[in-house]
Amino acid sequence: MTAQQFASDNYAGICPAAWEAMRAANEGSAVAYGRDDWTFRAADAMRAVFAHDADVFFVFNGTAANSLALASLCRSYESIIAADVAHIETDECGAPEFFSNGAKLLTVPTEGGKLTPAAIRRIATTRDDIHFPRPAVVTITQPTETGQLYSLEEIRAISAVCRDLGLKLHMDGARFANAVAALGCSPADMTWRAGVDVLCFGGTKGGMAVGEAVVFFDRALSDGFDYRCKQAGQLASKMRFLAAPWAGVLESGAWLDYAGHANAAARRLAEAVAGVPGVETVFPVQANAVFLRMAPEVTAALRGRGWVFYEFIGGAARFMFAWDAEVARVDALAADIAAEARSGAASYRQDRV
Amino acid sequence: MTAQQFASDNYAGICPAAWEAMRAANEGSAVAYGRDDWTFRAADAMRAVFAHDADVFFVFNGTAANSLALASLCRSYESIIAADVAHIETDECGAPEFFSNGAKLLTVPTEGGKLTPAAIRRIATTRDDIHFPRPAVVTITQPTETGQLYSLEEIRAISAVCRDLGLKLHMDGARFANAVAALGCSPADMTWRAGVDVLCFGGTKGGMAVGEAVVFFDRALSDGFDYRCKQAGQLASKMRFLAAPWAGVLESGAWLDYAGHANAAARRLAEAVAGVPGVETVFPVQANAVFLRMAPEVTAALRGRGWVFYEFIGGAARFMFAWDAEVARVDALAADIAAEARSGAASYRQDRV
Amino acid sequence: MTAQQFASDNYAGICPAAWEAMRAANEGSAVAYGRDDWTFRAADAMRAVFAHDADVFFVFNGTAANSLALASLCRSYESIIAADVAHIETDECGAPEFFSNGAKLLTVPTEGGKLTPAAIRRIATTRDDIHFPRPAVVTITQPTETGQLYSLEEIRAISAVCRDLGLKLHMDGARFANAVAALGCSPADMTWRAGVDVLCFGGTKGGMAVGEAVVFFDRALSDGFDYRCKQAGQLASKMRFLAAPWAGVLESGAWLDYAGHANAAARRLAEAVAGVPGVETVFPVQANAVFLRMAPEVTAALRGRGWVFYEFIGGAARFMFAWDAEVARVDALAADIAAEARSGAASYRQDRV
Amino acid sequence: MTAQQFASDNYAGICPAAWEAMRAANEGSAVAYGRDDWTFRAADAMRAVFAHDADVFFVFNGTAANSLALASLCRSYESIIAADVAHIETDECGAPEFFSNGAKLLTVPTEGGKLTPAAIRRIATTRDDIHFPRPAVVTITQPTETGQLYSLEEIRAISAVCRDLGLKLHMDGARFANAVAALGCSPADMTWRAGVDVLCFGGTKGGMAVGEAVVFFDRALSDGFDYRCKQAGQLASKMRFLAAPWAGVLESGAWLDYAGHANAAARRLAEAVAGVPGVETVFPVQANAVFLRMAPEVTAALRGRGWVFYEFIGGAARFMFAWDAEVARVDALAADIAAEARSGAASYRQDRV
Repeated sequence: MTAQQFASDNYAGICPAAWEAMRAANEGSAVAYGRDDWTFRAADAMRAVFAHDADVFFVFNGTAANSLALASLCRSYESIIAADVAHIETDECGAPEFFSNGAKLLTVPTEGGKLTPAAIRRIATTRDDIHFPRPAVVTITQPTETGQLYSLEEIRAISAVCRDLGLKLHMDGARFANAVAALGCSPADMTWRAGVDVLCFGGTKGGMAVGEAVVFFDRALSDGFDYRCKQAGQLASKMRFLAAPWAGVLESGAWLDYAGHANAAARRLAEAVAGVPGVETVFPVQANAVFLRMAPEVTAALRGRGWVFYEFIGGAARFMFAWDAEVARVDALAADIAAEARSGAASYRQDRV
Repeated sequence: MTAQQFASDNYAGICPAAWEAMRAANEGSAVAYGRDDWTFRAADAMRAVFAHDADVFFVFNGTAANSLALASLCRSYESIIAADVAHIETDECGAPEFFSNGAKLLTVPTEGGKLTPAAIRRIATTRDDIHFPRPAVVTITQPTETGQLYSLEEIRAISAVCRDLGLKLHMDGARFANAVAALGCSPADMTWRAGVDVLCFGGTKGGMAVGEAVVFFDRALSDGFDYRCKQAGQLASKMRFLAAPWAGVLESGAWLDYAGHANAAARRLAEAVAGVPGVETVFPVQANAVFLRMAPEVTAALRGRGWVFYEFIGGAARFMFAWDAEVARVDALAADIAAEARSGAASYRQDRV
Repeated sequence: MTAQQFASDNYAGICPAAWEAMRAANEGSAVAYGRDDWTFRAADAMRAVFAHDADVFFVFNGTAANSLALASLCRSYESIIAADVAHIETDECGAPEFFSNGAKLLTVPTEGGKLTPAAIRRIATTRDDIHFPRPAVVTITQPTETGQLYSLEEIRAISAVCRDLGLKLHMDGARFANAVAALGCSPADMTWRAGVDVLCFGGTKGGMAVGEAVVFFDRALSDGFDYRCKQAGQLASKMRFLAAPWAGVLESGAWLDYAGHANAAARRLAEAVAGVPGVETVFPVQANAVFLRMAPEVTAALRGRGWVFYEFIGGAARFMFAWDAEVARVDALAADIAAEARSGAASYRQDRV
Repeated sequence: MTAQQFASDNYAGICPAAWEAMRAANEGSAVAYGRDDWTFRAADAMRAVFAHDADVFFVFNGTAANSLALASLCRSYESIIAADVAHIETDECGAPEFFSNGAKLLTVPTEGGKLTPAAIRRIATTRDDIHFPRPAVVTITQPTETGQLYSLEEIRAISAVCRDLGLKLHMDGARFANAVAALGCSPADMTWRAGVDVLCFGGTKGGMAVGEAVVFFDRALSDGFDYRCKQAGQLASKMRFLAAPWAGVLESGAWLDYAGHANAAARRLAEAVAGVPGVETVFPVQANAVFLRMAPEVTAALRGRGWVFYEFIGGAARFMFAWDAEVARVDALAADIAAEARSGAASYRQDRV
């Protein structure tokens, strides 16, 4: 076993609350395809967390959760408005287009992946002829790929423009728990009370083996979604093993604690490297991600020290923290960054001399 | 916790070998999306079991495994030849048609779900005009939905007609382990040596939480399949938890032991009720399924005693046995059947008097 | 130029009314994509014929008309109930499945292709679990492939069961004109007044070069259909040439005269061969098709005399009559059939001696 | 009938050569679905024009021609590299995505819609992970939407990079005739000799009622394309009326004369307004399009004089010329532009005073 890395929050394993629930769910037989007690219990727990009689579906992964939800909100000849750096655009290999049979993503240039009401209105009203797909749904990522948060006011403003234009509002919440923990608001306030129609609530990055929840706050929109999941290969026969972890983390509140822990680890790193010369924090650290811009020789040196991370979005090194982030490792990373940056900066200055 | 039922083999939980592998895989961090050691190890174990350099993919469930494999073997305007009672026709909610974007299933009336070379040739050559989908692939289920087995000779004869007609041969092996255990042959002999191009090897019914393996024996056919899985929402980020159970059951041989145990339970029930008046074994018991035709009052009485089972395919009660079948429960079921059948037969005779 | 054949009604060319309209439409320039005067005029003519404020779309062919209409009435995980010999099942190469992205055709064994309320109810209620596509729409062909007609009472009874079960009712009217001419009823009575939601009204077989009309009697169902047509490659840029022929045949009433002529030709043949030994009329001749069962040597001899026709649905020879059927050719066909049948019957009797 | 407009080349009607061929094709009966003499003749004429044994398919419109061709060259999880202003991206309502079941268009910022080898290489090699669709095909538009031409050298350079990267090369030739007429080269040199795999050759804009040809220069790529057309609603039953116009224009050479005429009309307008103050020709006039940037009051005044035209791509007025462009109307347009521009310029100067 190698030392912990922060390359991605899906490098983490199964959290204790999810594991214990799986263990408990593994006792004896259970009815298949989601008619078991664990699934009912997990869906009830979800409704309790959101204080709303939502319709809840458990699917295998985020690709499917988002794509199925979006496909249910549009027809093939319609379009989905998204941020240019939205995961569904950049990293799902055309999954939304596949599940929807051809709906088009209309992407908007953004700062840090956040859509604005003005940008939505502009792109939604640019074309109104049948030669271009009709806008049907807006998707926002909370937090964004780079860890920024929409405030409740911002979500409300977006949902207002959506209602005005007849668009549905979808939230990609692969890291929804991190957003709730960061804003300290209620899940209800961040979603249905702010006008979100459907939420894809990420379980995998939150500490499960597999599994995301699709939460329809408006039950009129979920008609047929069970059939849709089945046809698309997203109905688990032994559903209890997808559902039980949700019961485990939701009933105990662990989902929020873990997310808070991950966020704190990100803040800890950000604070530790603040002021280090040659290390620039590229995006505000609001959730569990830290993007640092450093000289190439610094990132190379960090890799030489054994650190694993991705560089993207303009060459910044990304560090993601999960439920299992070890404080000592965070500190070790911060120390190595500081050391290499200072050394790199020194040598860089020497180069210039 | 209620007493064990035999309504389906997906009512069973996670087998010890899979569980222990998941536990081991849960130590520490791991690279995502299948580039981790567990995935490499599981794929290697699969290749060892088949004595072949196959290309192996781990996906979430059988709906997806079969549908993705079939979609990769045909184009939307082609057809898939299948038995009339094939699971992909009767219980996948149109998944093959969805994943293939419209390929048509051409079904053949069968005895117990087994295709024959003659039937394949007949349906594949009935039409040769562009107004009807062009046959591209044949799918056989081993064992069939009702528990019948293709012999190696039968598979070879089918693959011969497939080659002759330019068709690919796919095997739906949701219960492949049961077939291998029953026939006592090597996995290689039952698949690539007999001319099977792609196998969907079921893990869920074999004792995993989620997960099936798609095994391409001809690597020329697997080009792009990784992209296909990703786009279709079947690439697990924490792949280790899908892969480790495979390593667990394959390396230890547990996959075959469990299947043998399940088959034995089916035989045990079948033998126990053989000769009981009013109880007819509908299909030969060759794998882990037993179908019993009994009078309605008998099945009702069994339900009254707490037994859960499905009736279908002509009103027969189906009993499926999994890796966890308790011998005592099998015997209890057999005893209850015998008792109710004798009582029912008696009262039935009285009714007639 | 060879002598006229009756192999299919799409062997006929462009009828004078359509041709003259195309000629007139070809004067000068016109706005593209259906915003031209001819398209408005044709749609108005359609509404006048149906005495209803329907939403009308002109597309290129029947494959597309039916498939687009059906796709608009269901989702990919739903099913379409159709007769076993429906054209969409037997001769569209999986088009409905393609346009709907995987909807399943549930076919019902029929006599002459006519669905019954009982059969619809039976197949629509057989399954109600998510493992099988949910019924969403019923399609009937008027007249059927073999030339049978649904009476108005039969259509009303079917629409009643559709409403009861929450299903939409679609009519494949590739030869709708022949049905109206045969029943002598109003187009309105045969469609929206009888509960039909969407009609695909065939133009090609009625005497046009290309073109079918999709008529939505319930405008709530046509939302987005213009986008759907565009995306599916069914929006003609020079729409006037699809629309003008409709104006031509509808405004003049020629559509009905031509259909009546074709029907009369079919009756003429049927009457001429009635009673000829060895010639059996397989289906009641109600529209423009005649199916004759004759000995193989008779059909071979007819081919030897230069007649072209298809044999199908149990080996019967099919003769289809279009707007241009020449009475003399019909009589010549009848005479040849009678001569060969008598000769064949004679030789057949001799063979038996 | 109103005076001729130059808003689009699809405002024009049916050219004499196509009309006469349709008239001739309308004599008598003909076999359906493309097995008639006219279709064979038109395909032969196409092969003669290209001096190549190509596989030729006639479909209804350009949306379908391009989308079907592209779908045949990629799988759903692959991508299509196109110019940012390519028609398939901006004006086909998601048709390529629909026909391909989700392939993604990767668009490249261009000058006038022309891709370069460097840009193709860059976008094709940016990503090589399974989270992003794999590039499979490049499409170029000849001439581009704004009337620019790829030289033969440019096409060859593009096909070289395609071969190097394993990509197929598709040419959208909605106005292919205009390109051939403008460059004065052979159709062969512009296509297969330069490395183009598949050409969509536009007939509608060239003077037909409906119809485009898909020309596969590599017959290995056309396998199954007939089935694909049928399933997608693009197989005409009365194919002779799609094919005959092609025979008409190709055999006579009219296709090239008409295109030359249209190009000359564009040049005539461009030359007439060259030097007129306040009128800027936005793109080089190489084919049949002229884009003029004029002050808003000038375009308004032109509309006031009855001229119909679109403004797009940065507010320029587009004038498109077809086979039927009347020289007198071109001159009238030029005169009106000059008059209004001078007047507008005058009043504009006055405003500034």
